[in-house]
Amino acid sequence: MATTKSDLLRQPIAHIDIKAFDARPIVDAMGGMAFQARNLHRAATILDGMIREPEGGVILCLAGSLVSAGLKQVIVDMIRHNMVDAIVSTGANIVDQDYFESLGFKHYVGSPYADDHALRDLGIDRIYDTYIDEEELRICDMTVAKIAAELEPRPHSSREFIGEMARYLVAQGKKTDGIVLAAHECGVPIFCPAFSDCSAGFGLVHHQWERQGKPQLSIDSARDFLELTRVKLAAKETGLFMIGGGVPKNFAQDTVVAADLLGKQVNMHKYAVQLTVADERDGALSGSTLREACSWGKVDTAYEQMVYGEATTTMPLIVSYAFHAGNWKSRKPRRYAEICG
Amino acid sequence: MATTKSDLLRQPIAHIDIKAFDARPIVDAMGGMAFQARNLHRAATILDGMIREPEGGVILCLAGSLVSAGLKQVIVDMIRHNMVDAIVSTGANIVDQDYFESLGFKHYVGSPYADDHALRDLGIDRIYDTYIDEEELRICDMTVAKIAAELEPRPHSSREFIGEMARYLVAQGKKTDGIVLAAHECGVPIFCPAFSDCSAGFGLVHHQWERQGKPQLSIDSARDFLELTRVKLAAKETGLFMIGGGVPKNFAQDTVVAADLLGKQVNMHKYAVQLTVADERDGALSGSTLREACSWGKVDTAYEQMVYGEATTTMPLIVSYAFHAGNWKSRKPRRYAEICG
Amino acid sequence: MATTKSDLLRQPIAHIDIKAFDARPIVDAMGGMAFQARNLHRAATILDGMIREPEGGVILCLAGSLVSAGLKQVIVDMIRHNMVDAIVSTGANIVDQDYFESLGFKHYVGSPYADDHALRDLGIDRIYDTYIDEEELRICDMTVAKIAAELEPRPHSSREFIGEMARYLVAQGKKTDGIVLAAHECGVPIFCPAFSDCSAGFGLVHHQWERQGKPQLSIDSARDFLELTRVKLAAKETGLFMIGGGVPKNFAQDTVVAADLLGKQVNMHKYAVQLTVADERDGALSGSTLREACSWGKVDTAYEQMVYGEATTTMPLIVSYAFHAGNWKSRKPRRYAEICG
Amino acid sequence: MATTKSDLLRQPIAHIDIKAFDARPIVDAMGGMAFQARNLHRAATILDGMIREPEGGVILCLAGSLVSAGLKQVIVDMIRHNMVDAIVSTGANIVDQDYFESLGFKHYVGSPYADDHALRDLGIDRIYDTYIDEEELRICDMTVAKIAAELEPRPHSSREFIGEMARYLVAQGKKTDGIVLAAHECGVPIFCPAFSDCSAGFGLVHHQWERQGKPQLSIDSARDFLELTRVKLAAKETGLFMIGGGVPKNFAQDTVVAADLLGKQVNMHKYAVQLTVADERDGALSGSTLREACSWGKVDTAYEQMVYGEATTTMPLIVSYAFHAGNWKSRKPRRYAEICG
Repeated sequence: MATTKSDLLRQPIAHIDIKAFDARPIVDAMGGMAFQARNLHRAATILDGMIREPEGGVILCLAGSLVSAGLKQVIVDMIRHNMVDAIVSTGANIVDQDYFESLGFKHYVGSPYADDHALRDLGIDRIYDTYIDEEELRICDMTVAKIAAELEPRPHSSREFIGEMARYLVAQGKKTDGIVLAAHECGVPIFCPAFSDCSAGFGLVHHQWERQGKPQLSIDSARDFLELTRVKLAAKETGLFMIGGGVPKNFAQDTVVAADLLGKQVNMHKYAVQLTVADERDGALSGSTLREACSWGKVDTAYEQMVYGEATTTMPLIVSYAFHAGNWKSRKPRRYAEICG
Repeated sequence: MATTKSDLLRQPIAHIDIKAFDARPIVDAMGGMAFQARNLHRAATILDGMIREPEGGVILCLAGSLVSAGLKQVIVDMIRHNMVDAIVSTGANIVDQDYFESLGFKHYVGSPYADDHALRDLGIDRIYDTYIDEEELRICDMTVAKIAAELEPRPHSSREFIGEMARYLVAQGKKTDGIVLAAHECGVPIFCPAFSDCSAGFGLVHHQWERQGKPQLSIDSARDFLELTRVKLAAKETGLFMIGGGVPKNFAQDTVVAADLLGKQVNMHKYAVQLTVADERDGALSGSTLREACSWGKVDTAYEQMVYGEATTTMPLIVSYAFHAGNWKSRKPRRYAEICG
Repeated sequence: MATTKSDLLRQPIAHIDIKAFDARPIVDAMGGMAFQARNLHRAATILDGMIREPEGGVILCLAGSLVSAGLKQVIVDMIRHNMVDAIVSTGANIVDQDYFESLGFKHYVGSPYADDHALRDLGIDRIYDTYIDEEELRICDMTVAKIAAELEPRPHSSREFIGEMARYLVAQGKKTDGIVLAAHECGVPIFCPAFSDCSAGFGLVHHQWERQGKPQLSIDSARDFLELTRVKLAAKETGLFMIGGGVPKNFAQDTVVAADLLGKQVNMHKYAVQLTVADERDGALSGSTLREACSWGKVDTAYEQMVYGEATTTMPLIVSYAFHAGNWKSRKPRRYAEICG
Repeated sequence: MATTKSDLLRQPIAHIDIKAFDARPIVDAMGGMAFQARNLHRAATILDGMIREPEGGVILCLAGSLVSAGLKQVIVDMIRHNMVDAIVSTGANIVDQDYFESLGFKHYVGSPYADDHALRDLGIDRIYDTYIDEEELRICDMTVAKIAAELEPRPHSSREFIGEMARYLVAQGKKTDGIVLAAHECGVPIFCPAFSDCSAGFGLVHHQWERQGKPQLSIDSARDFLELTRVKLAAKETGLFMIGGGVPKNFAQDTVVAADLLGKQVNMHKYAVQLTVADERDGALSGSTLREACSWGKVDTAYEQMVYGEATTTMPLIVSYAFHAGNWKSRKPRRYAEICG
């Protein structure tokens, strides 16, 4: 094993550009096969269907380490080409990884066979086969603390706070494109229902600790849920494009029930695609089938598809397919961020 | 398929009682084998080690549908026998499932092959092979709304709010034992970092919707993180007993880093056991190894063990082993709930 | 890492004794739960049903490294207590592992984190967390070559050859009990449809290489299939107890079709239990559901159950349940070996 | 569900043509990412390395239902473009699926949610989401029986018998290209170490049953092993390209040890790629890492890569990459079939 930090943090992760290749020939060919190839093809056509839906809303759900793995540009491209209208994510993707890169830092190609004690001594954090400079991550944490300190000391939704994070980037003249920045510019709201469970949590804990006994900023996750429910109410038909499972999957699905509880009639999510490696047999939600979600009144079953495979190998194909299909070109931005406030 | 709701909601899930059998002979025999049997044995001895640690704190992390699957009594027994000092959980286990049962409702034996459209029409929600009466779940949601309406309209940590939920049970004379009730009585704090992502979220959305323009109760997930960090600061050594992964796993692990950020020296979590079906190869946290967590400075590697298997088949064996080992008998309650406020 | 072979080959794997504990209380309690616990309970009752079936035949299918993992005695106990009537296995379980131990060798507790190059240099073979002395394995290979050399140089079924291996043990006065020995004594035929794919293959390649141009012993896998089909014809009703998938699962299932092709009416396998970690979504047979097998006319669906979990943690519970249920006591030995010749 | 057989057997599986698209841009982009995308890229470069190896031999191992899933043409293209020199496979891929199609039959697009009892009644066999006409499969079985009846009644290796099956196709003027036919024409030997465990088994059982008391054809799996070991001896360096695990993976790896046992010095397999969904934690060989194989002296670790994903989604990308890299153009056919006899 190399012995210095700079030896190990040498090759940055490069984000895949799905505009640079047209995956349609391969995805179309997969449609005539079996197993996950056929499922992948169907998922791509369903994503395209979400985009073609008049007055429809596309909700992208993100779980797992997607940004650090090189999928950031895929998501940015979806935002900037009007293929997604709202995002529900784990905090890590949005703050520790995307915002971290927009602050000027990078993820690095590493090894799953590394000696973790040696990495610990060098201040390198590992995500399977990817390395992060821990000092840089601490700067990201403290940037959140700094932003929090300058805002009104009241409950904020995560969506609202992430908007402020974007404004900070703009004010500081940070120019590395990313999800937070693109979503801000395109009016795409981002929700992190477990916002403390990431780098942001460290910044906010610092904030509240420093201001003990004084008015503090807090993160109101109930308000996130209310705001996302407003998005559901605003859209005529909705589609969920879910990468991984976890909280984002559940949270987005639940808006149908929440609307119902507020006395509003809304349709179930009309389209649903999930890319996952989890399976249903342990009863956990991450692997629960979209058919099961139908029993809960959350997801309709006509246009649902699960694709069993790791997202770095499936998401680029599916999004490249929908991008090159080009149906986003005639689509108007929904700018749902404007109805959340 | 049976055609009435009462036909389908006939046989309640029965919670396993790990006190009623002594799993030590079988778990000890597994220690001399290979693969997951050997891992299961080692996990059991590490859990016992957490309990024997003088001045140690045991943090139980819960993800997946554990309570609905019949593991409620295992968790209650851990609380009431002083084998756990703090709980970090998904909202579903605590509110939709445990609190739901304490309100007098039940989960029912169902089939994974059910017709989900038919269930939908009957108002039955399905979790793999388990059924729930959706009307009863709505009562649970609205109970949360009712509790929220009677509290001071300010940010609450989920821990604080769950404490109020327990008080409501006591006030209403509800006697079905459960996690929320037992934890309340034993001073064990419960944290749900994504508290809106469950039945509680529905109740709170209803609360905030009804009180638009008026002061509202909110859930401050940053404060949860600060409170759990206080628990970490209070304990000399800590152990994590993690069922599933997701937010609870990450949240509890992160307290070491949070303490560091507040300028406090704390040890990494000394003990760590995870029961999971996830694997590390997709880079997601749920399956990330505890060795990887060492690179982050979160978990020490001397006493860590992952057990690959579904929790209903592994947790009863492990907890029965630790229960019958009896080392909890000489252990003082930590009552960490009292230092969270 | 320790530097000598004897340092690493110190603690032998100890085979679990399912007679020494009664798993019925825990397995019965699992029956009221959900997910794999409930499945495990049902599998145990179906295994018991196979044993209780009048004139029924129980076929045990073995894939994966079961014997080296400490499950040998479970299988021996099933044979000696009349709970199994025929075995279909990978060659590794029967020759490299069971016969190897009967020759006086052992498997050793190892580590999955070992340096495989270092092990290579020491002549130690690794199976995940288990070690084997490679020199001893070579002796096992050559024992097969020696046995082959003394037999008539004609095609043998694997069943026939394994019988000769048992006779060799007896002749040599080897007394370590094992599957090959117990099956021989109890008239239980053992089939390895891919018999060359193991230590036996090395011995037989050596045999044929040495006897180039002369009459040679060969292994006729078609005859194995014919013999196992005779077993199926002899039994009124059959049950499959499958540990893992692979060739043994398929081979045993196929006997129904083979009988049909010979113009004989036989029932589908009436009972079927599979313990596996594989899943169905890649279309491979190891994870294909037993319901799918029904479309092929192989397995009936009334008494079928898959249990998702690693066999070292599930098989001891299930077999202990059936053992202590005691229904084997009134069962007559089928001695199917006698109809194979 | 449709009620007639012809309703259900309407849309044939279409085999993907990796020559029709150039996957290099996407696979190259994956090389800078993380997790399985990076692994997939590395696997593609290692496959290309096998092809570029002077005097090297490429052994393709096939397990799982690959041909029925639409991967037949990928394998045929590898054979006809000199990218593979020997094949080790499960019987199902070669006989039930490839030979079946060369006899003029097809696989059909089906549904994983089908009612298997209804399929049973219609004589339709299901492989996850694919349908087969059972009557046509019986014709395939009986074709094997017919071929066996016309050959000399002595032990044949599966390689030898499959060669005869190819000759039968040619003699009958069957023109649907396939693996058996292409391999025959290109001198690529095909080994099925568990040859009875497929449609061929049915044909051979029928043959032996009909000829009781008379000389019979038999399949000598030991001879397969000897022949494949000859291939290993003939090649200077070898690479394994393994789709799935099971018997083919083990069998091909074992040739290094077999050569050693015959007193011949050979190198370990220099290159190894495995595409799989299995994992190592249950100790079974299908998921055992290629590093573990190093402890056995079978596979070197410099150029090994596992790719976790279902083969229909990964194999087309990897083979398209190596095909368009074009290094097969300057490669001489090895024609190893000629040294097996």
